[in-house]
Amino acid sequence: MSVTPESSSLQRKPASSRTVELAELVERYRKVRRTTERLCEPLSPEDCTVQSMPDASPAKWHLGHTSWFFDTFLLEGRVADGQLFPEQYRVLFNSYYNSVGEQHPRPRRGLLTRPSLDEVLAYRAEVDRRLLGLLEGAASGSTALAGLTEIGLQHEQQHQELILTDVKHLLSCNPLRPAYRRVPAPPFGDSLPLEWHRYEEGTYSIGHEGPSFSFDNERPCHRTFLEAFELASRPVTNGEFLTFIEAGGYENPELWLSDGWGVIRARGWRGPLYWEERDGAWSLMTLAGIRSVRAEEPVCHVSFYEADAFARWSGARLPTEAEWEVAAKRAPIDGNFAEDRLFHPDSASARDSTRARAPGGGGPVQLFGDVWEWTQSSYRPYPGYAPPPGPLGEYNGKFMCNQMVLRGGSCATPRSHIRPTYRNFFYPDARWQFSGLRLARDAR
Amino acid sequence: MSVTPESSSLQRKPASSRTVELAELVERYRKVRRTTERLCEPLSPEDCTVQSMPDASPAKWHLGHTSWFFDTFLLEGRVADGQLFPEQYRVLFNSYYNSVGEQHPRPRRGLLTRPSLDEVLAYRAEVDRRLLGLLEGAASGSTALAGLTEIGLQHEQQHQELILTDVKHLLSCNPLRPAYRRVPAPPFGDSLPLEWHRYEEGTYSIGHEGPSFSFDNERPCHRTFLEAFELASRPVTNGEFLTFIEAGGYENPELWLSDGWGVIRARGWRGPLYWEERDGAWSLMTLAGIRSVRAEEPVCHVSFYEADAFARWSGARLPTEAEWEVAAKRAPIDGNFAEDRLFHPDSASARDSTRARAPGGGGPVQLFGDVWEWTQSSYRPYPGYAPPPGPLGEYNGKFMCNQMVLRGGSCATPRSHIRPTYRNFFYPDARWQFSGLRLARDAR
Amino acid sequence: MSVTPESSSLQRKPASSRTVELAELVERYRKVRRTTERLCEPLSPEDCTVQSMPDASPAKWHLGHTSWFFDTFLLEGRVADGQLFPEQYRVLFNSYYNSVGEQHPRPRRGLLTRPSLDEVLAYRAEVDRRLLGLLEGAASGSTALAGLTEIGLQHEQQHQELILTDVKHLLSCNPLRPAYRRVPAPPFGDSLPLEWHRYEEGTYSIGHEGPSFSFDNERPCHRTFLEAFELASRPVTNGEFLTFIEAGGYENPELWLSDGWGVIRARGWRGPLYWEERDGAWSLMTLAGIRSVRAEEPVCHVSFYEADAFARWSGARLPTEAEWEVAAKRAPIDGNFAEDRLFHPDSASARDSTRARAPGGGGPVQLFGDVWEWTQSSYRPYPGYAPPPGPLGEYNGKFMCNQMVLRGGSCATPRSHIRPTYRNFFYPDARWQFSGLRLARDAR
Amino acid sequence: MSVTPESSSLQRKPASSRTVELAELVERYRKVRRTTERLCEPLSPEDCTVQSMPDASPAKWHLGHTSWFFDTFLLEGRVADGQLFPEQYRVLFNSYYNSVGEQHPRPRRGLLTRPSLDEVLAYRAEVDRRLLGLLEGAASGSTALAGLTEIGLQHEQQHQELILTDVKHLLSCNPLRPAYRRVPAPPFGDSLPLEWHRYEEGTYSIGHEGPSFSFDNERPCHRTFLEAFELASRPVTNGEFLTFIEAGGYENPELWLSDGWGVIRARGWRGPLYWEERDGAWSLMTLAGIRSVRAEEPVCHVSFYEADAFARWSGARLPTEAEWEVAAKRAPIDGNFAEDRLFHPDSASARDSTRARAPGGGGPVQLFGDVWEWTQSSYRPYPGYAPPPGPLGEYNGKFMCNQMVLRGGSCATPRSHIRPTYRNFFYPDARWQFSGLRLARDAR
Repeated sequence: MSVTPESSSLQRKPASSRTVELAELVERYRKVRRTTERLCEPLSPEDCTVQSMPDASPAKWHLGHTSWFFDTFLLEGRVADGQLFPEQYRVLFNSYYNSVGEQHPRPRRGLLTRPSLDEVLAYRAEVDRRLLGLLEGAASGSTALAGLTEIGLQHEQQHQELILTDVKHLLSCNPLRPAYRRVPAPPFGDSLPLEWHRYEEGTYSIGHEGPSFSFDNERPCHRTFLEAFELASRPVTNGEFLTFIEAGGYENPELWLSDGWGVIRARGWRGPLYWEERDGAWSLMTLAGIRSVRAEEPVCHVSFYEADAFARWSGARLPTEAEWEVAAKRAPIDGNFAEDRLFHPDSASARDSTRARAPGGGGPVQLFGDVWEWTQSSYRPYPGYAPPPGPLGEYNGKFMCNQMVLRGGSCATPRSHIRPTYRNFFYPDARWQFSGLRLARDAR
Repeated sequence: MSVTPESSSLQRKPASSRTVELAELVERYRKVRRTTERLCEPLSPEDCTVQSMPDASPAKWHLGHTSWFFDTFLLEGRVADGQLFPEQYRVLFNSYYNSVGEQHPRPRRGLLTRPSLDEVLAYRAEVDRRLLGLLEGAASGSTALAGLTEIGLQHEQQHQELILTDVKHLLSCNPLRPAYRRVPAPPFGDSLPLEWHRYEEGTYSIGHEGPSFSFDNERPCHRTFLEAFELASRPVTNGEFLTFIEAGGYENPELWLSDGWGVIRARGWRGPLYWEERDGAWSLMTLAGIRSVRAEEPVCHVSFYEADAFARWSGARLPTEAEWEVAAKRAPIDGNFAEDRLFHPDSASARDSTRARAPGGGGPVQLFGDVWEWTQSSYRPYPGYAPPPGPLGEYNGKFMCNQMVLRGGSCATPRSHIRPTYRNFFYPDARWQFSGLRLARDAR
Repeated sequence: MSVTPESSSLQRKPASSRTVELAELVERYRKVRRTTERLCEPLSPEDCTVQSMPDASPAKWHLGHTSWFFDTFLLEGRVADGQLFPEQYRVLFNSYYNSVGEQHPRPRRGLLTRPSLDEVLAYRAEVDRRLLGLLEGAASGSTALAGLTEIGLQHEQQHQELILTDVKHLLSCNPLRPAYRRVPAPPFGDSLPLEWHRYEEGTYSIGHEGPSFSFDNERPCHRTFLEAFELASRPVTNGEFLTFIEAGGYENPELWLSDGWGVIRARGWRGPLYWEERDGAWSLMTLAGIRSVRAEEPVCHVSFYEADAFARWSGARLPTEAEWEVAAKRAPIDGNFAEDRLFHPDSASARDSTRARAPGGGGPVQLFGDVWEWTQSSYRPYPGYAPPPGPLGEYNGKFMCNQMVLRGGSCATPRSHIRPTYRNFFYPDARWQFSGLRLARDAR
Repeated sequence: MSVTPESSSLQRKPASSRTVELAELVERYRKVRRTTERLCEPLSPEDCTVQSMPDASPAKWHLGHTSWFFDTFLLEGRVADGQLFPEQYRVLFNSYYNSVGEQHPRPRRGLLTRPSLDEVLAYRAEVDRRLLGLLEGAASGSTALAGLTEIGLQHEQQHQELILTDVKHLLSCNPLRPAYRRVPAPPFGDSLPLEWHRYEEGTYSIGHEGPSFSFDNERPCHRTFLEAFELASRPVTNGEFLTFIEAGGYENPELWLSDGWGVIRARGWRGPLYWEERDGAWSLMTLAGIRSVRAEEPVCHVSFYEADAFARWSGARLPTEAEWEVAAKRAPIDGNFAEDRLFHPDSASARDSTRARAPGGGGPVQLFGDVWEWTQSSYRPYPGYAPPPGPLGEYNGKFMCNQMVLRGGSCATPRSHIRPTYRNFFYPDARWQFSGLRLARDAR
């Protein structure tokens, strides 16, 4: 997952827009930080501490790491108070920044019963106090400080989604099947029929442009030639995926990439993560507990391998990330944001991994706010890509190998974190994220 | 570690002594149960939940499992109240009893953030309430009930020691090096000089006999022929072990069993567990935090392989368990019990893994209450051994392979749990227990 | 590695050219098959049988599998003689074709001491006898048969290279350091200075077109937009790579992809495969035995991770496969083929992994016949790609994930197997192939 | 397996018998060495080279190692010819002797395609030439030389058995199911009925005594007290073991040691090694190929865990090694040696793993020459055990941990290598040796 931003986009702003609205930024800072804490409110200290697999981190670690980010990249060298916290926090909460120093090994994050949750929350509060002091004392033209703050907030929003996916995985390991938060499931309409939308061949502009925020991996904006293609109007549904399962999709090697076939056999996969069959009926684990699989929801928690096999079985394929972006730049960000309050105070959707139906228009719908959509594109640098200088540059570029790009944004993604050029990325066997798929095909 | 007792010893009592002192048993029950909880008082909910390796269990699990034991083997079928607790507790807190039903997999005990610590403590309280009701309502001659209760208490005392060793391991994984409880180290005297005590050849009686409590693996009492041998007057000290390290003991394959040499190379061992060298000085992690290695203390946290290699390097050997028992039956249980209150309210010693000096007599000292002492004996059944019938018999016998016997009892062993015939056992590469060694040799 | 071709390119020939020159094909068949056997002549039966790692196969297996290919896809159903060979050959020598049936597990190919080398050679001879009979009896217009034969021969040429790389790995595992064949190293000139060649931005045609043979993964020919770029005139040399090593390249995490850094630390890599340092001097294992590392040769046996890190350290990058192809379509296939007879009777180069210097022209040189060159492109399908129908289609597409594309061809690649559109592919940590790199950069 | 002897037993001979019969020794040397080569005659160079698992070694390695033993411990320093062979043979063919120098890693013995089989046979021939020269030139009283020669021959006989067990495992991995040697199965009689033989309690003398050869681990002869016990008249048969399987023995955890239950579940064991069930009928792989399981043969290729579980299911137990020895010292070595010529020119039995019936007497039969019999004793040193000084002492003692003792000798053990005090030992999960079991029980 792209976790580190860079500051140059803000610095590259035309001079005329450089007067940063600091008051607005302070407000945004308060809101984002508060959201992270609210996400942890349903969790006990135990829930916040345990790590259920090396890919996932404890919520307490997320709380500490996002504060460490501000502490390290903004406060250090700018605030005279000195280090109030144990020196080891620099190591414990460093994720990957070799240029900043050592890191506590990722698979051992769950062994940190100390600092306690209370101590980590105190660390957060003190970082907030200092950072707000810094921001309030800054000259109104301090774009560098504003830029770094924005990066820190975008970074924190990424971890908000991870808190939900990681805790969902943790709770799913418990035979008691506890819920993160028991809320009634929202009402659902019928499935939308699948339609195909055509895009003509041509040279398209791909990537982010302009002064608004983006991560380095969305840049530079560049040209790509695309053949004519078609994109499905909506994501693949649970009902469609069930048909694939019942047609023997998981038993037929000819549908699978060789590596994918190896994975599903070695791990005994027979359906999406969190699905369980009992007496012929399928149920699934959600953040609100166990319930039945509903045919009309977008399928979620599938790996790239499963998405790819489903597409092959359908006689279609996954879109490239460029195809997806071409369509998305012409589509509304159509999440049903009125219901946002259930799991995530700032999320694109009220539901755990699903949406009932979207207000159809002339183009594809549900591109944002339901499930991340696997593309067929490997995560590689754009032409002309260069990581930004300094420690904050030591990031997105380091992961540009062996991972696949997902686009859109899920029900757990904060609304203000969603944009058409956003590149999410995971290993092809990962499925604890809210990941689904949408079909594409060559134009007829 | 031997975790399951059996009841037959109590049932075999001569009829004249069958009037069980129920009031005394109730008192003992209250005291042992309370001790377990006091051991957990310095721990946060996080500390009680995390599992640092598959061999160790979270303190919360120990709290639950010891209650499950009474719930399953005493309350079920005897108390009419019915099951007040979630059905899954039967699975979550079952350790190994296949005849009782399924078990939650041992390496996944640390994933159980629910039930919370409070819920587990409530489960304990309810089990106590019911069990005390049962005991108080029992006929005074109910030896079966008394026997089962005693087994449950002995079982719980085993887990009291494990709580300390498991939490010590957990805290040692944390770069903050937190202490379980910060107490001043007790004063120490000088090392005792090493003396040898001679025992003549002959046929000796080995194993437990009589009406007092013992586990099944200590029985039957039987005859064993021993050649004349000599036993060291005290355990090997840190100072002696340091000499071994400095003499290149960990680099010389000729000192090691082949399997041991493989283990120390694969894991990079260079000294006992919890020892660290910095700039030529050795320190060690204790339950009270980090401090210097003191030459006069018994060496602790060594594996069988290290104990065996040290003995070979010394020109001596480890005693057999029979040799050890012959000596121990003639020795006082000489722990310095006045200081018992530091870590373990009912422990044989106030110190973490060590004792300064023992009141010497005519025989070996410090046999009990400092460190478990590795013997050279594999853990195998005694001649005529038969596991008791029923689910409680499904225990000690199942582990009689691939493990080595330790004798004595450590600073973390409850005083009332120590006896000369007690057989503790661990795999030869285990060293997170309070394990040390004492030398023996063939008589000249 | 792409191992399976498909037949449609030949079938798509315009009708006017459909009269296949059967005599020529028969001659080519004899020559390719004989070459495979000559490659095994320096090997003992033991050398041909052992498998040194799961990625590599024994030479005997390659001999059997290439015959199985003709047996299965050409003879079966066309020749009346019936099955003369043990039924299990179908399983033993099947590589991956699920639609053909079961496969002997790849990591267990080295357990097949039977059939003996002689029996496998007899199987080859019988397949040859039958296939030549089939070809000689065919009508001159039998393009399907000719097409399948050509596929079988291209497939066999791929395995010729693998025989050399797999046996090189095997011999390198032997402390006796045996040579495949002791031949004097060819004379070398000086290194060529590095120059940069510029290519302008534009929409380029990429992929194979026309009636000549290609694999399915080289098709369809399609348009790609490229920004202006520059390509190095020659591959990176050993001398340049040594400078990288001496500058601490293997110790600096900032130069490496995150996955690559994990791999080099876990495996302790400090230089290319087969390199050894003793007393500050570097030597390397070749098919002709051990000799010194020569600065002027192209570096070989590096993984994608190492190629990528070297390029980053150089301030450059790897080319995309499209960039490489644009340059290669304008370059001569400039191998020094006069010396072809040393290791490989039909190889592009006489040397083991290197060439001294190439006859420079106006563009890059040494694109073919020295080392496979890692590109920065993930191995993914071309737009519009569809695997051919039938069992022969069950191939290249299955591997289009997690692997990186290499271009060109090595000193071990048969001359007639080299073409500018050829896509080779391996996992990014593989380095037992003859793999090197060439630098690229964005145009200034 | 005990592989290294020591010389002191011969040196301890009373002076009056010190005149060694050198002519007899020369004859014995020739015969044993020739036998090893004859055992390899049915094998191809490929068969002799491949290693099917880390526990097993290639036959070529056995041929080289047994020669290296004479080369290193007898020729070196005694023969002036100098080293005729590559220096690396010292490393390649060293098994475990750290005091002699480095060792080629055991799991990589199968990568040694060079030296070729012919080269290893030439090495053997040269070692023979030199050693016979040495023996023939020796003074008749050279007991040291005679003693070392005898050790080398006993050592070589151990490897003769391993050649058969290792090649059996290798051939079993091949789907072609090749035979080592196709010979007709010998005729069988009916099963003997099971009887129990009683032995009284008392102090027994255990271990080897006197001037004849024994390994160090059989000494010193010492006293052991045994309770009265009973031993079965014959080994457990296939028919009895089938009943155990059909009664669900492999599905019932209560029958198994905890470690054993873990092993059978992890590896999916459902019966002895080499057994296969098809359509309800069981067949097994033998050195003569596949054939039906015969009910009357001793069960073979079971692990200690399976032997232990079977005994528990039977209501009996395995004997201790002392019990077994007490019985065996009173029993005839009753192999049917007339048929010795089939697999092993000097073997105790003509059959692969079985014997039909034994000439019953007053005591147990078939103690030798059918299957090694698992005892319940861990492999530990006898009281007073000391390894001999010098490099030859670096052996049996190193393995005295984690292994279980087997007694008797199998159909693949050379006749002259069998004796009642012989201690064989393997890990409790090993089953590629010819290992079976015999029941014991406490006397009634």
